[in-house]
Amino acid sequence: MAATAPASDYAALCERLRELSALNGVSGLLGWDEQVMMPDGAAELRARHGAALAGVVYEKETAVELGQLLGRLEASPPADAWEAAVVRDAARNYKRRVALSKSIAQREARLSSEGYQAWVVARKASDFGAFAPVLREWLELTREKCAAIDPTRSLYDVSLDGFERGMSSARVDEVFSAVRQGLVPLLAEVREKGTPPDDSWLAGAYDVEMQAALCKEIAVQLGFDLSRGRLDVSVHPFTGGAGPSDVRMTTRFKPNDLLEGLTGAIHETGHALYEQGRPDAYDGLPVSEALSMGVHESQSLLWERCVALSKPFAAYLLPKLRAAFPGQIPADKTPEDLYRALNKVSTKSYIRVESDELSYPLHIILRYELESALLRGDIAIDDLPKLWNQKMQSYLGVTPENDAQGVLQDVHWSAGAIGYFPTYSLGAMMAVQLFQKAQEDMPGLDADIEAGRFAGLREWLRVKVHSKGSLYPTADELMIAATGEPLKPEVFLAFLRSKYSEIYKL
Amino acid sequence: MAATAPASDYAALCERLRELSALNGVSGLLGWDEQVMMPDGAAELRARHGAALAGVVYEKETAVELGQLLGRLEASPPADAWEAAVVRDAARNYKRRVALSKSIAQREARLSSEGYQAWVVARKASDFGAFAPVLREWLELTREKCAAIDPTRSLYDVSLDGFERGMSSARVDEVFSAVRQGLVPLLAEVREKGTPPDDSWLAGAYDVEMQAALCKEIAVQLGFDLSRGRLDVSVHPFTGGAGPSDVRMTTRFKPNDLLEGLTGAIHETGHALYEQGRPDAYDGLPVSEALSMGVHESQSLLWERCVALSKPFAAYLLPKLRAAFPGQIPADKTPEDLYRALNKVSTKSYIRVESDELSYPLHIILRYELESALLRGDIAIDDLPKLWNQKMQSYLGVTPENDAQGVLQDVHWSAGAIGYFPTYSLGAMMAVQLFQKAQEDMPGLDADIEAGRFAGLREWLRVKVHSKGSLYPTADELMIAATGEPLKPEVFLAFLRSKYSEIYKL
Repeated sequence: MAATAPASDYAALCERLRELSALNGVSGLLGWDEQVMMPDGAAELRARHGAALAGVVYEKETAVELGQLLGRLEASPPADAWEAAVVRDAARNYKRRVALSKSIAQREARLSSEGYQAWVVARKASDFGAFAPVLREWLELTREKCAAIDPTRSLYDVSLDGFERGMSSARVDEVFSAVRQGLVPLLAEVREKGTPPDDSWLAGAYDVEMQAALCKEIAVQLGFDLSRGRLDVSVHPFTGGAGPSDVRMTTRFKPNDLLEGLTGAIHETGHALYEQGRPDAYDGLPVSEALSMGVHESQSLLWERCVALSKPFAAYLLPKLRAAFPGQIPADKTPEDLYRALNKVSTKSYIRVESDELSYPLHIILRYELESALLRGDIAIDDLPKLWNQKMQSYLGVTPENDAQGVLQDVHWSAGAIGYFPTYSLGAMMAVQLFQKAQEDMPGLDADIEAGRFAGLREWLRVKVHSKGSLYPTADELMIAATGEPLKPEVFLAFLRSKYSEIYKL
Repeated sequence: MAATAPASDYAALCERLRELSALNGVSGLLGWDEQVMMPDGAAELRARHGAALAGVVYEKETAVELGQLLGRLEASPPADAWEAAVVRDAARNYKRRVALSKSIAQREARLSSEGYQAWVVARKASDFGAFAPVLREWLELTREKCAAIDPTRSLYDVSLDGFERGMSSARVDEVFSAVRQGLVPLLAEVREKGTPPDDSWLAGAYDVEMQAALCKEIAVQLGFDLSRGRLDVSVHPFTGGAGPSDVRMTTRFKPNDLLEGLTGAIHETGHALYEQGRPDAYDGLPVSEALSMGVHESQSLLWERCVALSKPFAAYLLPKLRAAFPGQIPADKTPEDLYRALNKVSTKSYIRVESDELSYPLHIILRYELESALLRGDIAIDDLPKLWNQKMQSYLGVTPENDAQGVLQDVHWSAGAIGYFPTYSLGAMMAVQLFQKAQEDMPGLDADIEAGRFAGLREWLRVKVHSKGSLYPTADELMIAATGEPLKPEVFLAFLRSKYSEIYKL
């Protein structure tokens, strides 16, 4: 075994990384403030302030001395697994960062801003042609970036790696094709042969202040620590902030949609619990950070779907709804009725963000297939709306009426986020597999949830996932450590088939 | 005349200064967040984030290249007065910053934290002896700092200059001794021979939410622009933020003190209007910043005292109070009654922050005399409580019962802020002189205030003060430009004598 690097190199690395983490924390706070607190008239000033801070961070992230330190430490990595992971992740980040030439960075900044504007205009006019040039430029830029980062791997793999560390398109293909093959017939069966539950009694006008108070109460019961975070309202709910002891989650409530506010708040709580549970001992170092976007989404979706859309949670929730909205919940409704109403599958699903648990993965698989083929150059940009609509018909049984309802519905590609979509469904699958393992480990879990006792599950997740930071190099390795197996799409499919067969009386 | 420096040096300077301004803006936002939004448990994380940002700012503020640019530009300054002021202020800031060796900076950081803790403990125990060692260390450190910044000037002048640019102790002596000589007998006369107004009818419990709503309405009517700022609640009211288009003021309300919340909110609005009115054209450059702490205080006190404690404002305010607090204001009370009640002078004044317009300057003069003598070494630290009490008796006619009520009441010295106190009263005097000039220029001003029309006064202040930034090198030169004369203590004294003679029927 090679001699480990001198402690002083590792210590010097940590000092640089902690400074960077602090500056990125400041940047996170600026981002939160911009969406939650900033007055409208400050947008231009804030853009300049953010750019100045980003410039400082860029200088420090690409400092030659950092590269030299990393070179020495990679040559003889620390023996300790956590310290080795610090070096591994820092080296990976450095490599991705220095690969971005100034010219690429500038084009990226310009396209981010122009791309968003073009997408807004194109979607409003429902005209894909108006957006195609931006998408073409993003694809070219992404190809250039990926080739610069790692010319030995496929373009899409490099792009995907920016969102889901260590994931490959070969593995995504394997997982997604299994899901697609199981889900398309299940969805068709549910729609054609199933007996839909009644959710009409949940419709109504629910006081927004009361929704907010109820969701805050639930977030705290789930374990969100208000002494180390805040809960505010923003137009687009998100979880951000400055670090594990300053996690800022936001929610949004509409009077006519009780479910959206509730599941949204629980979703963000899942993200927030991950952030608050990151390993203190490595604070400020990359290994303390969340492993990937997919793992992050597994935490939000575990709480949102596996917990909040479960039968025992319905038993916990129903009396709370009755207390918060007196007279609005019919007296004869049972937890079973609530459970069924919360899990209704839409008969027609065009829009990803409005789609249910069963339809959602098919929206993602469609996007994954198209964006990876686009990046490889296997399909032409101009054919995209046509291909989109064909896949919609084939997977989800509907054909969008126009581009706004179809290929233009999502903002992601306008920001060059190619490789982002898969993480949503990878996270959904991890969530089910983790939750089933937690149920196995804690036989009383359902009873705990029904009684509003969430500490056991939260602690299980803290130990198995949150406190591991990014010690493991891939989500699959985290899954093996936490559940004994890598991500298995069959677990997800079996869960959905069983759940919806019962609800829809198949 | 020397040839002006090449445009490229000036442009290069501006680029560096704008980056620094942006990073300081971020730092300002962090400070606001810490006091208004941050969860308690994030304090340690925030300290590290703040330190990382401060480190970056320090590196950039003391960069050798910046010094070289400034050296060339000072040798042949720009012809334009604004650009010349940019160079002048940047050079001054650079000089003050590089004079702080790393050792001084570290001692300063340590003392700031230890000093505050020691002060809290000493004040609680009312034991000056427990605070004396900290004060001794601060005095030594301040002497060292001032000698390093400019060994050609007196220590106190250099320290004062950090808060009130271009001010000297000779000039403060001249102004303060005139004020003291006029004010001590006036205060005694008011107390001994005056007929105090009745303010008992203002006592009561006022709904805090309603106070906040009323003060927000008034702040907006005075001209605070909510599209370029925020108004929140914090334990200690202050005005901060990230720049002229992102000014964040805070207020505080107590149910049993209507006056404190109201005057506090109007005070902060005065600071905020100055910040929002700074010159856009020079945004990000030092010349766009407020001239000094004294001038800043002149803006808060002009609105708080000259406007809000005036007769016409009482006529504007009374119906608003009646509307906000139905049934709480006796029906027979007139604007004149309100005016008189708002201007009651306390019979015993021990505490600066609770003191009235007449007593306040004497509290300041006492502190100025003591801190300047301490820094010069003319008096011994151990004699401070005794000297404090003697001066209190001589100027304000009371002797504190203990150190907590006396020499330990203020936090300033625990933070090493020596030279800060004078700015409060210099600002109060400037406020009166500026307001009288505005009245002279706008004969309808009183009627405007009574009618709630504040735009004329605000615009007058914007043109004369806010939009001038720190173009002028001293407050006196700003006063000459705005009023035709330097600061004149007689104006202040005559105003107080006339106002309180009428209220107290002398």
